[in-house]
Amino acid sequence: MKINGQHYRSVWTVGDDAFGIIDQTRLPHEFVTLTLHSAEEAAHAIRSMQTRGAPLIGAVGAYGLALSVREDASDDAINKALEMLAETRPTAINLKWALWRMRGALLNQPHGRRVALAWAEAGKIADEDVAMSEAIGFNGLKIIEGIAEQKPGQTVNILTHCNAGWLATVDYGTALAPIYMAHDAGIPLHVWVDETRPRNQGASLTAFELGSHGVAHTILADNAGGHYMQQGQVDMVIVGTDRVTANGDVANKIGTYLKALAAKDNNVPFYVALPSSTIDWTLADGRDIPIEERSPDEVLKMQGRLADGSVTVVDIAAPGSGAANPGFDVTPARLVTGFITERGICAATSEGLRSLFPK
Amino acid sequence: MKINGQHYRSVWTVGDDAFGIIDQTRLPHEFVTLTLHSAEEAAHAIRSMQTRGAPLIGAVGAYGLALSVREDASDDAINKALEMLAETRPTAINLKWALWRMRGALLNQPHGRRVALAWAEAGKIADEDVAMSEAIGFNGLKIIEGIAEQKPGQTVNILTHCNAGWLATVDYGTALAPIYMAHDAGIPLHVWVDETRPRNQGASLTAFELGSHGVAHTILADNAGGHYMQQGQVDMVIVGTDRVTANGDVANKIGTYLKALAAKDNNVPFYVALPSSTIDWTLADGRDIPIEERSPDEVLKMQGRLADGSVTVVDIAAPGSGAANPGFDVTPARLVTGFITERGICAATSEGLRSLFPK
Repeated sequence: MKINGQHYRSVWTVGDDAFGIIDQTRLPHEFVTLTLHSAEEAAHAIRSMQTRGAPLIGAVGAYGLALSVREDASDDAINKALEMLAETRPTAINLKWALWRMRGALLNQPHGRRVALAWAEAGKIADEDVAMSEAIGFNGLKIIEGIAEQKPGQTVNILTHCNAGWLATVDYGTALAPIYMAHDAGIPLHVWVDETRPRNQGASLTAFELGSHGVAHTILADNAGGHYMQQGQVDMVIVGTDRVTANGDVANKIGTYLKALAAKDNNVPFYVALPSSTIDWTLADGRDIPIEERSPDEVLKMQGRLADGSVTVVDIAAPGSGAANPGFDVTPARLVTGFITERGICAATSEGLRSLFPK
Repeated sequence: MKINGQHYRSVWTVGDDAFGIIDQTRLPHEFVTLTLHSAEEAAHAIRSMQTRGAPLIGAVGAYGLALSVREDASDDAINKALEMLAETRPTAINLKWALWRMRGALLNQPHGRRVALAWAEAGKIADEDVAMSEAIGFNGLKIIEGIAEQKPGQTVNILTHCNAGWLATVDYGTALAPIYMAHDAGIPLHVWVDETRPRNQGASLTAFELGSHGVAHTILADNAGGHYMQQGQVDMVIVGTDRVTANGDVANKIGTYLKALAAKDNNVPFYVALPSSTIDWTLADGRDIPIEERSPDEVLKMQGRLADGSVTVVDIAAPGSGAANPGFDVTPARLVTGFITERGICAATSEGLRSLFPK
């Protein structure tokens, strides 16, 4: 994707011993990049959400692990780095998937080759993520085309929650990839962007992405999406996900479940876009997905720009009141119209998932 | 209710030609009162939400109309002032109800008596609101007692959205009145407080009220309530309302509908507390309730305290992105377990409402 005319991925190599990311905690107020030189720096960037988005933290974790191999290529060191990186975010499965893939690519190899192999494998994970996002875009585009055909000449209204765009992947995005492709194909589109409290990834990241790409969009308080569905102003919902269980339950940013309920209540198709690295075949259903509890400060404080352009944090709640801050919720498969994956579209059922991913 | 040991109502007379309100746009950061001297000042206070809450703006509108009578007691002037005040907020019906009641009490009376009559009638509206809130509290208390009996020794968890406390009425509140009474009766209680974006009435006003009264509570992003219902952490939901139609549909703060869907999906009782002045018998169902569209700035900006205690406003969204801001949504009667009114509890149906309010 392009920022001010320059092409960016969300993660890139810097020589062969460092890699770069966009500091997403500074967006949309400032565009700042960071160069990370170690697994510890990568872990910090993931934990503090300088880099985030289920597919992206898989690639960042892989690069982090690759850097740890430069310091110590032993099995023990690899296992330790893996554990440290895996613990940074508990809910998204892509991180663990990428780290285990790295481990598998390294442990049976001669120590002398591990540095080069690790760097190459991390690069492959990143490149494959781009290819998967692109394929998700093409597959989701067909659904949008189908809706556009039902209302010729009219705008297709799509609601999304949180950020599952190119900032959440290595490029293109999951939920936003079909939207970018539909926009580029000339389909008249408008996106309702859920603000996505408490971290405001919708108002800050998704709105920033859509604005940069020229896609018409409107920010909504998270409370408002149900109302627009009742009013017939939403043709479909597309969200990303941090983990899909074998039966099709979907962990995603807190609040996704509420929008899925409203979509069901108003017969609005509700799609979840994901690369297959997001599927956790080891969990039968969503009850066992660990839900990350984050800092109350994310609810009690808010970052923003003052009139002079400087960025600050304000306290917004009643002094003395506490907050709870679950990062994710689980949307039951029964509320999901379908999955948009790199291999095609399927029902949100075990059979649906197995039809695309048999093994 | 008491603030720092001093008893306050949300509206009070100042001599016989002015009245006071708490400037709710300054809470929870500062406690500031305002004295209003004219219908125009009252209209401004309602429009800018310095004073808000469906029952409270009824009383404030009544006092505003009473002040207009001091300037011109003619039928024409009364009708004009009524129209100006009624237009300030379109969704809540209590304001119109109070203004029409004032009009009815004045138009057939001699001009010379109208000033005194208007002031007395506004006072009656305010006093009756207090009595209704108190009765709602007693009636709702029975429901909470019933839940407490089902889980002896355990905390009853109640979720509420927006602010329907004493700051939204003249005293006690609607949704919060049963909570205060249950707390005072020694029932162990904990309240999940929806932040209620975009104006944050939950995090600012409800949390402030509950904290002042010593009721245990936790602020949640509006996205999180469904998750806690799925986890069995919510025993009941109580909200207020701005208008109930003859069939039991409920207009309330944007986002109420989403919480009602989640309550239904998890078999959590969902109650709406209201004085009968909130019932609009002229509307068959919720489709015809006008939904106020408020400024996008409420979504794009946020007020808060800086570290030095000063209050400021920050821009939180991507520069150049717009927002939509519907103030209310309509929860269909089918999602409502029951109404808690000053006359008792009833089903959210025409028959239920008519059983308590026959005429």
